[in-house]
Amino acid sequence: MESAIPDHLRSARTRHRRVPDDYAPPYPSFVARHKPSTKRIVMAYFGLQFRGEPSGAAASALAQLDAALEQGSAPGHWDRARYTDQAGFANVISIAYWDSAQRFDNWFAASGAAWTADLHAGSGVGRFSEVLRPAVERYETLFSAPDRAEGIAVLAQGMSDMVQEHAYWGGARDRIPLAQTDDLAPKGAASIERVGSRLRIKPQHNLCLIRSGQDWSDTDAEERRMYREDVEPVLRRGMDFLRDEGLAIGCYSNRYMTVLDRHGKQVEKSFGMSWWKSLAALERWAESHPTHVAIFGAAMQYLSKLGPAARLKLYHEVTVAAADEQFFEYLDCHDRTGMLSAG
Amino acid sequence: MESAIPDHLRSARTRHRRVPDDYAPPYPSFVARHKPSTKRIVMAYFGLQFRGEPSGAAASALAQLDAALEQGSAPGHWDRARYTDQAGFANVISIAYWDSAQRFDNWFAASGAAWTADLHAGSGVGRFSEVLRPAVERYETLFSAPDRAEGIAVLAQGMSDMVQEHAYWGGARDRIPLAQTDDLAPKGAASIERVGSRLRIKPQHNLCLIRSGQDWSDTDAEERRMYREDVEPVLRRGMDFLRDEGLAIGCYSNRYMTVLDRHGKQVEKSFGMSWWKSLAALERWAESHPTHVAIFGAAMQYLSKLGPAARLKLYHEVTVAAADEQFFEYLDCHDRTGMLSAG
Repeated sequence: MESAIPDHLRSARTRHRRVPDDYAPPYPSFVARHKPSTKRIVMAYFGLQFRGEPSGAAASALAQLDAALEQGSAPGHWDRARYTDQAGFANVISIAYWDSAQRFDNWFAASGAAWTADLHAGSGVGRFSEVLRPAVERYETLFSAPDRAEGIAVLAQGMSDMVQEHAYWGGARDRIPLAQTDDLAPKGAASIERVGSRLRIKPQHNLCLIRSGQDWSDTDAEERRMYREDVEPVLRRGMDFLRDEGLAIGCYSNRYMTVLDRHGKQVEKSFGMSWWKSLAALERWAESHPTHVAIFGAAMQYLSKLGPAARLKLYHEVTVAAADEQFFEYLDCHDRTGMLSAG
Repeated sequence: MESAIPDHLRSARTRHRRVPDDYAPPYPSFVARHKPSTKRIVMAYFGLQFRGEPSGAAASALAQLDAALEQGSAPGHWDRARYTDQAGFANVISIAYWDSAQRFDNWFAASGAAWTADLHAGSGVGRFSEVLRPAVERYETLFSAPDRAEGIAVLAQGMSDMVQEHAYWGGARDRIPLAQTDDLAPKGAASIERVGSRLRIKPQHNLCLIRSGQDWSDTDAEERRMYREDVEPVLRRGMDFLRDEGLAIGCYSNRYMTVLDRHGKQVEKSFGMSWWKSLAALERWAESHPTHVAIFGAAMQYLSKLGPAARLKLYHEVTVAAADEQFFEYLDCHDRTGMLSAG
């Protein structure tokens, strides 16, 4: 067992972990390990928004994005997912990951900035870019199994051994290297500015992003039934609550998304991704709101019934981004899209 | 709203609270406030153990204790409760509180030490004394309503205003004054020594005690039905788990007790009291074990259905005792009684 914080990012704590040194988690979990030379990573969410089925404009936008994502300093990994938002719009989001800010900057200048360019205004589909470029001190990952990387972990050197800091509330904070010495408190308020045809977010310091997913593609019939009937409906209710009523508790936006394959077909993976005013607001919801307590309870029952036989894979990545690590632009999107709710 | 830690016990934190300064709990809770001159309190559990219904010996022991509890430097408050333990013995425990160690010492020398005196050996009933005398820096209380003191709070000057540090995991630790600067980690291991006919515990540093109770005497018919059918069975399963399987997770002993009136009749109050290796072990069970997650989920559902109309009263007191603040003696008790499990 090892610490979730790798040696080269460990510092003298002025803020203590929630668990004692002899704490032994009740089940194994793993974190992504980057090369020590990796200083900063990039997580970029490129969204397309439309009503109903994709129009010709939507299909061609996606085809252009597909091409862009293979060009130049292309992302090391990307995937795509879809959900229907609270205003009834379909949103198809392509999520790309880099482990070098320089490579991202090169790619973005050449192929990425065009995604929300003014020339696309009035095309009948909305577009948005939501990009974080956190220093490696500012995010953490967690995986229930070491053999199924998702998200930024696909770019990592590999997975850790079993880590100590998990399976208790506050574990995410304890896994974030910067939290060794920093309270990660939010500062300032996000606001909206208009730049050409686009709405851009003037960011708030220490904004929090979570992507938290499940993959049931390996489950057999009985486990699949349990996931679908006992867990998924409870998860959905929690996701719907955050989408519809999250703002009051610091959740600017929540998207409960189904992953698509390269042909746009749904696969047996889903994830929630949400923007939060602070890690603290996310912690409070997770640990005390009835909707997440229900999710946690359903997941605990499921996992305690199945034990190590469970084939469901779970993962998440949580980032607390400095103001200068954020970029948000919205073109022709409705006014409750993503971080526009925060403005 | 105020801090759970009173001004005169506040110190420069070297260990941070889990919540930011602007945290607002979702519902009100209150803590007991002692006079600043109160430096140390005493919580004394005097147990009687027998099979079946009380014999003449048991009844006369209780009558003697009743008298003792009114004599000399008598406790400021005491109550009595009963439960059947894992070995099938009935245990009637009288719990007495003082807010002065000196007064307790006077009383104990004159009237208390006799409870487990060797002369009672072989009487056919077991007796035990479990006494903590914590400095006020070493315990905390929490109440769902400010008008129903229980336990040590009956001796307090009054209740606080609504406090900030509650309704999140880790709140108990954040309310304990000593936790501002101390990790409250356990040191050493408890062991058993024989003193005459008695078994005495050589204590372990930073042993943890929780008494956590509920009072449904004010509930109307529908709320009472909800408590009895939706909450109590889940609570009982958690209490049974701790009683029967707690040792593996650091719970030496758990008693799920029903409060008795002065005539030995059950009233509509119950509480769990348990001895733990550490506050950390209690925290881990509370926040992640399926049995307590289920209790928490049931309580959340109950309270969110009823809102401020709920008449159920909840309270607890949690103490982390130094080695020299503990006294345990067992006479003619079975070998899994209380802290004998730890030896």
